[in-house]
Amino acid sequence: MFKPLSAELLTEFRALIGPEYVLTTAEETEPWTHDYTEDLRFQPEVVLKPANAADISAILRLCNEAGVPVTAAGGRTGLSGGMLAVHGGVILAMDRLNKILEIDERNLQASVEPAVITQVFQDAVAEKGLLYPVDPASRGSCFIGGNLAESSGGMRALKYGTTRDYVLDLEVVLPSGEIIHTGARTLKNATGYDLTRLMVGSEGTLGIITKGTFKLVPQPAFRKLMLAPFPKGEMACEAVSAIFRAGVIPSALEFMEKDAIDFAQNYLKEFPFDTSSVEAHLLIEVDGQDEMGVMGQAEKVFAVLEGFECGEILFADSPEEQARLWRIRRTIGEATRAGNVIKEEDTCVPRAELASLWKCVKETGKKYGLQAFCFGHAGDGNLHVHILRPKDGGQVWEEIARKAVREIFAYTIQLGGTLSGEHGIGWVQKEFMDIPFSPIELELMKGIKKVFDPKGILNPGKMFPA
Amino acid sequence: MFKPLSAELLTEFRALIGPEYVLTTAEETEPWTHDYTEDLRFQPEVVLKPANAADISAILRLCNEAGVPVTAAGGRTGLSGGMLAVHGGVILAMDRLNKILEIDERNLQASVEPAVITQVFQDAVAEKGLLYPVDPASRGSCFIGGNLAESSGGMRALKYGTTRDYVLDLEVVLPSGEIIHTGARTLKNATGYDLTRLMVGSEGTLGIITKGTFKLVPQPAFRKLMLAPFPKGEMACEAVSAIFRAGVIPSALEFMEKDAIDFAQNYLKEFPFDTSSVEAHLLIEVDGQDEMGVMGQAEKVFAVLEGFECGEILFADSPEEQARLWRIRRTIGEATRAGNVIKEEDTCVPRAELASLWKCVKETGKKYGLQAFCFGHAGDGNLHVHILRPKDGGQVWEEIARKAVREIFAYTIQLGGTLSGEHGIGWVQKEFMDIPFSPIELELMKGIKKVFDPKGILNPGKMFPA
Repeated sequence: MFKPLSAELLTEFRALIGPEYVLTTAEETEPWTHDYTEDLRFQPEVVLKPANAADISAILRLCNEAGVPVTAAGGRTGLSGGMLAVHGGVILAMDRLNKILEIDERNLQASVEPAVITQVFQDAVAEKGLLYPVDPASRGSCFIGGNLAESSGGMRALKYGTTRDYVLDLEVVLPSGEIIHTGARTLKNATGYDLTRLMVGSEGTLGIITKGTFKLVPQPAFRKLMLAPFPKGEMACEAVSAIFRAGVIPSALEFMEKDAIDFAQNYLKEFPFDTSSVEAHLLIEVDGQDEMGVMGQAEKVFAVLEGFECGEILFADSPEEQARLWRIRRTIGEATRAGNVIKEEDTCVPRAELASLWKCVKETGKKYGLQAFCFGHAGDGNLHVHILRPKDGGQVWEEIARKAVREIFAYTIQLGGTLSGEHGIGWVQKEFMDIPFSPIELELMKGIKKVFDPKGILNPGKMFPA
Repeated sequence: MFKPLSAELLTEFRALIGPEYVLTTAEETEPWTHDYTEDLRFQPEVVLKPANAADISAILRLCNEAGVPVTAAGGRTGLSGGMLAVHGGVILAMDRLNKILEIDERNLQASVEPAVITQVFQDAVAEKGLLYPVDPASRGSCFIGGNLAESSGGMRALKYGTTRDYVLDLEVVLPSGEIIHTGARTLKNATGYDLTRLMVGSEGTLGIITKGTFKLVPQPAFRKLMLAPFPKGEMACEAVSAIFRAGVIPSALEFMEKDAIDFAQNYLKEFPFDTSSVEAHLLIEVDGQDEMGVMGQAEKVFAVLEGFECGEILFADSPEEQARLWRIRRTIGEATRAGNVIKEEDTCVPRAELASLWKCVKETGKKYGLQAFCFGHAGDGNLHVHILRPKDGGQVWEEIARKAVREIFAYTIQLGGTLSGEHGIGWVQKEFMDIPFSPIELELMKGIKKVFDPKGILNPGKMFPA
């Protein structure tokens, strides 16, 4: 389908951005052959490190003319294989576009380049008393550009929203080399089609994002974190929606099954959670500008939890204690992946259907003899599912696991849910896109793709079923 | 460009939805010849009142085959002429799709048909202790479908967001007659392109929305409303962004220039505002679940206002007093339009640029000898601009006013702003779309339009400059 990269093109790339930014050997390009998705590896023909939008414009123009695939890569922490060069070609390593361009304290906005690490951005605005609340588990290494590409959410989306809700304007390079802007520096915008949000979650298939302007909010002055153990996991699930019905919107509400916690605690050799007779924990944070108000919210949460056969609730008051609990939560993915090959799903349902989804995952795991467990952003109805390859697994596992995943997804859609809350579709979920979408709906999406990228050079092989 | 409607097609419409729902006489169709935009009138060839998505599917299929324009109409309170049948053809009056289908208290969600009046929806969910916060001034007569089409915001968008932020899933009929769903009943979604938000603000040019699922939030238990008079309007503008910088996100923050208030007070014959030596008022509301927290926010606001040469601040504590103040605010549009022809702009800028925008409006008005004043959602940086036609005006006015509007818009864009925060582009703003967007950006939008509506029958003549 795609032509191999010509020697002439490589020469042009070297002249354009400097030979030191054109990587071709197996050793140099190794970091861009994989992300955090299963054990997948794909070899790009070249990794380019452009300095700015002008470089990217020139590169895209050349690749578009030559019909060479271009896949943008950020922090390579993706869980759906979004940055894998499945058709070879060019990897556009965005690393050099890593500047925070402006923190506009007058307007509570900031403009950044796409390779700024999410936590670096959070810390920079926190110094000004501001909050960028989008908070993926991988915030220490993921890039804002990747967050935009995959519509990332994270721990605080239930109260604060996801990447989609913070981005006001994007600078995007099209395959033709043209540079466009999608929005304005305004909180509201009813001026033409919403190209900004069309770009968010488009996984590098429509254009290359080279700049984003985001809104910020004031840092909350007070936070309270509670840890609630549930002998029965189902009760933990049911408690989640009850908290919202009681009028509280927590700033975080994480569900963690015993297996997930055990992996993280054994990996970190820290054991703040007692999982001995506990199927699941909820980690619940409330925040606000007013101490009494935050206390009031915590008390309401406490009262709700007591109705769901919850064990003793721990209040983590000191920043150190809070950090200790969060560290366990944030490490689950890394800990499970260490020494395991996993299929990680990103199911999302209306939050009162969590118990049904969780039971489905457990039963499906049992049915196929696979270890399967859940954790994640229960307040959003977003459960991450880990399905582990048995140590003696292989091709048979692949087949069985995909069957299991298809069953879980089909049930997720029945519950009013969707395939992915925040990881995207990428390479590994695309075969399931027929479950939520009709052929007509997929054709509309492909039609949009064609408007932006008529020759199909941007991240080919992703998102759409073959 | 479009063929006139044939007698055969009319017969088919009558057979399809019943002759009583096919309106053709000048008298019957009169309500659909205009909305709230200037003094514009356009005559549709027929007004159809379908009962459901199946009717609409059949109608669109017929019109698509015959090449007949179809324009959806809701509550007809639009301010950009979005529902005007500028090319004749069919008006699809959505009035019969007016059911609240479900209020899902377990998940804090609701599904509604597009002709539900916004306030009816708000009241229905309020009975369950829930809030649908999107709150346009016209909420008593506008439809949810129109709010979706124009990406409506309203009084509380600064804290709670706009229509875009509440819609989770849409049912949409395409010109081909196919019925699609755009999303899921989930708070997060990273599954394919964001068709949901592409539909929001698309002004009936991509498809006809026949159902929407929305998220809801808990009703705040406490609200405090403050009215602050400013001898100098510029100081009122500057105070707006200072409130946010102090760490408060109010639930409403409205700017009202003296002229705007005078129009509303004289129209209602109620005079709660003293405008004698005051250039502008701010109406500021804070809300929350906790009384002390709400008080704390109000005190912070009070402290900020004192730094901006503000007059005596009124605290409106009783619901009656609050309603009285809000009534004045909500009536400004209606009051100015009564007996006047106006150009109403919907400029939106980063909120710290409000003072610059306001001064530009006043100076431009002066320069062209036109009465021009501002009011609106200052917390969002969204200022509505009224420019009044002089009583002896006419064709010359039209020319001058458009020149003035173009200058105001050009400056708005310079400030990082955009043409419309929540009214949409429709018929009257489309000639200015070259200011925020490059030809490439407009071509992308037209390309998307073509994917959904290849024959261009849906609301033709809108949004895009000729």
